[in-house]
Amino acid sequence: MNSTSIFEYHILYSGINFKYLPNLIFSNQLFQKLLIFAANKNETTMYRTHTCGEIRINHQGSEVTLAGWVQRVRNLGGMTFIDLRDRYGITQLVFDEKTEQSVAELGNQLGREYVVQATGTVRERSSKNKNIPTGEVELAVTALNILNSSDTPPFTIEDESDGGDEIRMKYRYLDLRRAPVRDTLILRSKMAFATRSYLDSQNFIETETPVLIKSTPEGARDFVVPSRMNPGEFYALPQSPQQLKQLLMVAGFDRYYQIVKCFRDEDLRADRQPEFTQIDCEMSFVEQEDILNMFEGLTKYLFKQIKGIDITEFPRMPYSEAMGSYGSDKPDIRFGMKIKDITALAKGHGFSVFDDAEFIGGICAEGCSEYTRKQTDALTEWVKRPQIGAKGLVYVKVNTDGTIKSSVDKFYSAEDLQKWVELFGAKPGDLLLILSGVKEKMLKAIGDMRLEMANQLGLRDKNVFQPLWVVDFPLLEWDEDTARFYAMHHPFTAPKPEDIPLLETNPGAVRANAYDLVINGVEIGGGSVRIFDKALQARMFGLLGFTPEQAEYQFGFLMNAFKFGAPPHAGIAFGFDRLTSMFAGLDSIRDTIAFPKNNSGRDVMMDSPSMISLEQLDELNLVVNLKEKK
Amino acid sequence: MNSTSIFEYHILYSGINFKYLPNLIFSNQLFQKLLIFAANKNETTMYRTHTCGEIRINHQGSEVTLAGWVQRVRNLGGMTFIDLRDRYGITQLVFDEKTEQSVAELGNQLGREYVVQATGTVRERSSKNKNIPTGEVELAVTALNILNSSDTPPFTIEDESDGGDEIRMKYRYLDLRRAPVRDTLILRSKMAFATRSYLDSQNFIETETPVLIKSTPEGARDFVVPSRMNPGEFYALPQSPQQLKQLLMVAGFDRYYQIVKCFRDEDLRADRQPEFTQIDCEMSFVEQEDILNMFEGLTKYLFKQIKGIDITEFPRMPYSEAMGSYGSDKPDIRFGMKIKDITALAKGHGFSVFDDAEFIGGICAEGCSEYTRKQTDALTEWVKRPQIGAKGLVYVKVNTDGTIKSSVDKFYSAEDLQKWVELFGAKPGDLLLILSGVKEKMLKAIGDMRLEMANQLGLRDKNVFQPLWVVDFPLLEWDEDTARFYAMHHPFTAPKPEDIPLLETNPGAVRANAYDLVINGVEIGGGSVRIFDKALQARMFGLLGFTPEQAEYQFGFLMNAFKFGAPPHAGIAFGFDRLTSMFAGLDSIRDTIAFPKNNSGRDVMMDSPSMISLEQLDELNLVVNLKEKK
Repeated sequence: MNSTSIFEYHILYSGINFKYLPNLIFSNQLFQKLLIFAANKNETTMYRTHTCGEIRINHQGSEVTLAGWVQRVRNLGGMTFIDLRDRYGITQLVFDEKTEQSVAELGNQLGREYVVQATGTVRERSSKNKNIPTGEVELAVTALNILNSSDTPPFTIEDESDGGDEIRMKYRYLDLRRAPVRDTLILRSKMAFATRSYLDSQNFIETETPVLIKSTPEGARDFVVPSRMNPGEFYALPQSPQQLKQLLMVAGFDRYYQIVKCFRDEDLRADRQPEFTQIDCEMSFVEQEDILNMFEGLTKYLFKQIKGIDITEFPRMPYSEAMGSYGSDKPDIRFGMKIKDITALAKGHGFSVFDDAEFIGGICAEGCSEYTRKQTDALTEWVKRPQIGAKGLVYVKVNTDGTIKSSVDKFYSAEDLQKWVELFGAKPGDLLLILSGVKEKMLKAIGDMRLEMANQLGLRDKNVFQPLWVVDFPLLEWDEDTARFYAMHHPFTAPKPEDIPLLETNPGAVRANAYDLVINGVEIGGGSVRIFDKALQARMFGLLGFTPEQAEYQFGFLMNAFKFGAPPHAGIAFGFDRLTSMFAGLDSIRDTIAFPKNNSGRDVMMDSPSMISLEQLDELNLVVNLKEKK
Repeated sequence: MNSTSIFEYHILYSGINFKYLPNLIFSNQLFQKLLIFAANKNETTMYRTHTCGEIRINHQGSEVTLAGWVQRVRNLGGMTFIDLRDRYGITQLVFDEKTEQSVAELGNQLGREYVVQATGTVRERSSKNKNIPTGEVELAVTALNILNSSDTPPFTIEDESDGGDEIRMKYRYLDLRRAPVRDTLILRSKMAFATRSYLDSQNFIETETPVLIKSTPEGARDFVVPSRMNPGEFYALPQSPQQLKQLLMVAGFDRYYQIVKCFRDEDLRADRQPEFTQIDCEMSFVEQEDILNMFEGLTKYLFKQIKGIDITEFPRMPYSEAMGSYGSDKPDIRFGMKIKDITALAKGHGFSVFDDAEFIGGICAEGCSEYTRKQTDALTEWVKRPQIGAKGLVYVKVNTDGTIKSSVDKFYSAEDLQKWVELFGAKPGDLLLILSGVKEKMLKAIGDMRLEMANQLGLRDKNVFQPLWVVDFPLLEWDEDTARFYAMHHPFTAPKPEDIPLLETNPGAVRANAYDLVINGVEIGGGSVRIFDKALQARMFGLLGFTPEQAEYQFGFLMNAFKFGAPPHAGIAFGFDRLTSMFAGLDSIRDTIAFPKNNSGRDVMMDSPSMISLEQLDELNLVVNLKEKK
């Protein structure tokens, strides 16, 4: 089978429009699998003989029946042309002088988004449309059945709609008719299926854990569900099935996974949803290396099966290197431009800004030496924004003629600056951008500037994918406000065995057997080796400021389970919405979700949440007590 | 590959113990698919070279490392034998006179459910255990690592445990270690994957619908979730994604499915769970016949792939026939014993019980003519139980010599009774069992008696499966208490087109395009063709007693969506817990669920639901107001 027919097969059977997913191809293996089913696959129903994406020149002369929505109506020289759309494609219907009059009259009544069933004869089009797979043919209509009429939609159902966000959300069922949105959801479905295929092949058991669980105070805020049968008591919706999957390991399930909804009642920032989906996994009798290998495998499989991309490199980077060289725990390594520390070189030259700074460092922007004053001023403004927080920007231009020009020439000789240039490995034509201040804050600021420069230089190609494991995270984070340590990952994360002696003496220096999967600067997944020793777990709760009673109340069932032979275990969870949005080339997770909520947690289509009746409240032993807004 | 090695392969890679699922085999097709992955499949981890289910005689002489739980310790003539268990099987470890002393001493410290890692040499066993696939070999231990100790478990971790229900639920993670429970959950995972494989091959898009939706009063009671960001308002958890999947059809998704959690806050009867799982499906441009064919396909595929059973017959039966011949809308057709109506024959012979009855009918129990007086008395007591509700039982014995003996010989001549015998088609040796009373109630009672007799006669073999579509359900049910009609299926179910004229004149007689999948007398799934015409939908809401305002408030977003070109569509949902329990041969759904709740909706393991803090309540603008129990 040649590649054209694979393409056709694909168009025919999946309904994905390649325009939006140009890299989506099927590897031979999945294709083979699909072929097994192809003989039985059947979109024919009582209402249609074919789909609107299926008719080709070889159907010429045959009578077919299609059903779908009117995408477009054109009247030209006494003829009517209708673009009929379904999930699988678009086919042109024609009513011309040969069409029976009653049929033609019906055809003239059609408006946008009417639902019709049309029977006709396939014929070659006189003016072909090379942009769509069905563009060589049209259907000369012999019978037409209007299945449903439609009001004029509140926005255009086109790839680029004229509707604003709010109205498209209110009429989400119409927004979902648009090919880019629909294709993202088809992609999501294919990704979920491929994920399951891989994990099933590796003997993982998909196990559903309960949605109505127990509220725990650690972590984010829970959504709660009042129990009518247990008055005054509440279930919580899971923020993740963390403890339940650990119990499945205690139960000997060995390999667990679930593609599962999780819930967090957080104030919503852009691109956060109160309910989101995780690929949640846990394995027993494993060490960190086993997990990294297994889920490198999953990641490679998904890229190969869904996007036809071979991931060859899968580097691992300690957290300390990520922070030091990229100013981020989720470095985008599609490009270099690593952060260099010039503190030692730059101090003591009488430039008080640098002399007073804990840290001086920056990046080398390749080929930017000819940035104008306006451009460097704009960059300076950019780094001074509150969310970046630098006081100013120092630049050093390495001109193409080899001369050096900086904004601190007053304080540094050409020889001084030449040392900087060498440390950065800068070439003629490059531009050094340097910030100074408190080390931790400046590393982050330079990291942000690095991403901004990469954006300006077009180094963040959405079609290039560079995964990375970030490893050796700190076990604990100190919080100044509450003056206590918090678990950076969660309280069940195991410290590195060699760091255990530091737990009481220098808790902040203890590294965890924790790991994040980062792709293109986005955190896609994260996990850890778990503590499986009850004494170490108790010590950990102590470090986190729990009294034994509190620990027992909150985590008693897990602590109890650990008394009966917990195996060594470790796990990981992938953010499935985010992974989908990355595969789809989107900037937001919202269009990876069929019915998302807005930033106030509202579903504007359903108009939810809503008031419930007093009877309902009464049955739940609840009274609503609205306070004045402060 | 011969069947033995397929068996071995299966044991090796799935961890399912055939003892509990004797019919579970893999068809060649799925087996082929597994083979594709076999090369990559790998249970080896840093902790083990093999699993406890994997070692065979051909490993003799090799050094392997296993990890698992101590199932059993036996000391015999100075030797120690340990059964080491993991999900994949059990392998015997041996410590004998050749074992290094320090290792042997460690071996003597092991107790039940300790977690260990053992390295040793595979050798042939002197006394083989033919009951397990690893029974020919044992591991002569050379190194032992105790990974975790265990308290003595509160009940035995054996196929038949000594633990009662309550304690097994409290320690569910230990109960899940028992092979029958674990294997049911592995089966569930395989069934979910096979379901997805089938539906994916038929171009269904798995689409996740939201868990936080809008509360609607129709149907069962909703679980609700207070919204912190929208004070005084509540989300509801879905009883099913009914309206959302219909919106996906309006959106043109064409084929939708989801294996999805649903929620009902009902008083829990045995075998009901507040959260349960559906295989939820919807299709566009289809009629009832399309749905029946597609899901007959799914059912056959599951039986073939999971249990190796070819389903050949898939009859369809109108609701009226099901009620008339089986006294049930979910007939068990593994056996005949249909209900016969003898009202016309039996009335007017002076037997006042019959003369006053609306309906007289019964069943013919084959080969039961020699039932003793004690047995017929017991049956009489059985039918008089309140849940059956008959006033008495009339029997007619067709003796093996051809004579007839009945409990109503006083009123009926041998010729009279011979007519009954002929109507029932009874043969010598059979027993007629006859009830009388109000027709509807008696049909149900006779139907129940039919099942009871089938149980007594061993006609309900768990290894025989007989699926059936029940079709042509009534659209509406009259409720005496509230003096209104209710939708038998739900308010979106389409009436049969030919019955639409009856909607206002004789609503009770209108049949729906609704269907149930029944297997062995259990309702496994149900669905309907939906109304897609907004005028008809409004008429339907009117029949159900909604004012237009109420309909708008409750179903406004669906009614609105129908203004913009809804396609003809239909769907179905399978109860996945029940389907799994049927495939596993269980009587209850509870052990198909990893962490079920008890009859008070409590998770006794987590001790949930539980109190939440006043701060949490305050954030949600709620006050708990516990009333005195009435």
